[in-house]
Amino acid sequence: MKDFVFHNPTKIVFGKDKVLEVGKEIKSAGYNKVLLAYGQGSIKNTGTYDKVVTSLSKENIQYVELSGIRPNPVFSKVLEGIEICKKEGVGAILAVGGGSVVDSVKAIAGGVFFDGDFWQVFQRKARVEKALPIFVVLTLSATGSEMNPSTVVTNEDTREKFYFTSTAVYPRVSILDPVLQFTLPNYQTSAGASDIIAHIFELYFCGEEETELQDEFSEGILRTVISFTPTLIKNPDDYHARAQVILSALFALNGVNGIGREPGDWSSHMLEHSLSGIHPEIAHGAGLAIIFPAWLKYMMPYAEKKITRFSQKIWGIDNPEAGIQRLKEWFISIGLETSFKGFGVKEEEIPVLAEMSMRMSPLGSLKTLDAKDVETIFFYCF
Amino acid sequence: MKDFVFHNPTKIVFGKDKVLEVGKEIKSAGYNKVLLAYGQGSIKNTGTYDKVVTSLSKENIQYVELSGIRPNPVFSKVLEGIEICKKEGVGAILAVGGGSVVDSVKAIAGGVFFDGDFWQVFQRKARVEKALPIFVVLTLSATGSEMNPSTVVTNEDTREKFYFTSTAVYPRVSILDPVLQFTLPNYQTSAGASDIIAHIFELYFCGEEETELQDEFSEGILRTVISFTPTLIKNPDDYHARAQVILSALFALNGVNGIGREPGDWSSHMLEHSLSGIHPEIAHGAGLAIIFPAWLKYMMPYAEKKITRFSQKIWGIDNPEAGIQRLKEWFISIGLETSFKGFGVKEEEIPVLAEMSMRMSPLGSLKTLDAKDVETIFFYCF
Repeated sequence: MKDFVFHNPTKIVFGKDKVLEVGKEIKSAGYNKVLLAYGQGSIKNTGTYDKVVTSLSKENIQYVELSGIRPNPVFSKVLEGIEICKKEGVGAILAVGGGSVVDSVKAIAGGVFFDGDFWQVFQRKARVEKALPIFVVLTLSATGSEMNPSTVVTNEDTREKFYFTSTAVYPRVSILDPVLQFTLPNYQTSAGASDIIAHIFELYFCGEEETELQDEFSEGILRTVISFTPTLIKNPDDYHARAQVILSALFALNGVNGIGREPGDWSSHMLEHSLSGIHPEIAHGAGLAIIFPAWLKYMMPYAEKKITRFSQKIWGIDNPEAGIQRLKEWFISIGLETSFKGFGVKEEEIPVLAEMSMRMSPLGSLKTLDAKDVETIFFYCF
Repeated sequence: MKDFVFHNPTKIVFGKDKVLEVGKEIKSAGYNKVLLAYGQGSIKNTGTYDKVVTSLSKENIQYVELSGIRPNPVFSKVLEGIEICKKEGVGAILAVGGGSVVDSVKAIAGGVFFDGDFWQVFQRKARVEKALPIFVVLTLSATGSEMNPSTVVTNEDTREKFYFTSTAVYPRVSILDPVLQFTLPNYQTSAGASDIIAHIFELYFCGEEETELQDEFSEGILRTVISFTPTLIKNPDDYHARAQVILSALFALNGVNGIGREPGDWSSHMLEHSLSGIHPEIAHGAGLAIIFPAWLKYMMPYAEKKITRFSQKIWGIDNPEAGIQRLKEWFISIGLETSFKGFGVKEEEIPVLAEMSMRMSPLGSLKTLDAKDVETIFFYCF
């Protein structure tokens, strides 16, 4: 097991109707003007927007809006948000949405204090040291961004989907109100579940050894997601099942599951970022449901023991290949694709997908991937 | 599942020789004079004291000492520490020790800013709102005090062993260096393991339902402690086993295991506090190894389903009574007593033990205990 530092300062407020407390949380932290950032308007249809602005108004918190943040969020929107924050002199930012909104807000919060070409931070040529305080009302549990220091954004000009990490962008407070997720389309719930599973996998299959308690936590989260997601597909407003999936997303990537083995592998995520950077119509989690089984198949010579353990602990079977197959069948059962064919991605695209992935080198810790490895994994996605 | 707020600001620094970084942590937090608090001198025999003062001196951090804190720590020592802090004008407190030292330091840190009779805080008649910053070098993993906001102290005058909780006393930084625990006597390792298991039980058997992920975490920690403690009894310097038990203690009571079901039951702890308040020669964890199986036996009508689950998930057996029996056998296998007789406690003491316990009423959440219930549980301890 590796040495580690664990220090996660985010406050989590969980429960029914907790969205109504967002104004109080922002006020008690000392802020009275925020950027209110959200997506493409679904929060207005579901009533979440009204609840949020009612709570803000009750505490006399002013807000300016940034709307239209899309899935696989883009850098131009981040720049737009930075400009608004500077012009309006907001004291904090409130994200109301899922991972795309939270990630955009993290980038905006850091960008406000950054001089120069901000994309350099995503290219790892510069660092974010200071950020506006971030508050979150979460409407989709998947990315874990509500309690971690990372953000992923796509640059439309270069089609690069890159990330940065900074302790300055841990959300100050994240409100997890299961009721807000009752109205999610099944596809988003399913893609979210795939993302949660992928986060567990990146740390579980990273090659680090002597991590028994961490493996127990990983397997516990996997069993919980696998058990409760099908319930949500049938009954999206099942409070108990929703709560369990929300907690699973939270603990998959808030650092607890990563102690002693961070940073993890993450090559599958990088491959998926290439995919959804080029095909933004593919949700991140949906892409991972295709790529992770392919990566596991390719990694069999390097991780047979751990894949066998996974098969035993999660599916109750001893054969590791069968364990991967069961995972694919489970993805299909919740409505996800497990082949590129389902999205019309063509084999001719493999070279450009591989080239884009290699830009994020070095890739992987279980095995460092070269271009040929990456091409083969993409080939396994068909 | 209950609504919850989770907000744990403690920074954990884990790894071999991390003790040598304590001076740097205190310095970078902005303090240059501390109270150095420790126990009855074992840290001088093991070399830990030298490592700590070397690290402090390297950063030019001044220190005044409070030594002689004993297991089941006492209130008079807390008052002594408060006086030293006030007189010397220290900026922070450094605890080097196990739960007794950390708990004493939490009380001292809060007492420095408290006007009036400080025992009233333990009697829940007043609250700690402010405290000196606390740094910890942990030498025994058991109580979880290194990453939580609670402290337990015994008042020698009244023989009351009471606690208080305040967010002001979360340690700022806790250093977990497995090497420091290589020299622990087996009895302390065993009593520590019992304490860890008891913390899990208080939250696992509290009667709260629809807590699947939390139950998974609990069971994962239980299996880890049960698996690695016997290794430590044979090889106290097994780094990997020590690391796993250290993490188990940490996550048993840092709030993660408690989300959605806190505060938990805690009646067994209150009964044990009566026991070790009257018999300070009995280590807290050693007392719990006797009381918890007795409590479980008495609770069978109220928790048969959960005790059955425990028996299945931990021991692989279906019979709940057999599950409790296996637990007792495991305690015996690591050198602990499972009957009061082993400590010479007499049946005639039951009334005073029960009376002392009832002073901490209300007791329990799975079932609220009255005096007769408590007497019966103590009777089952023979």
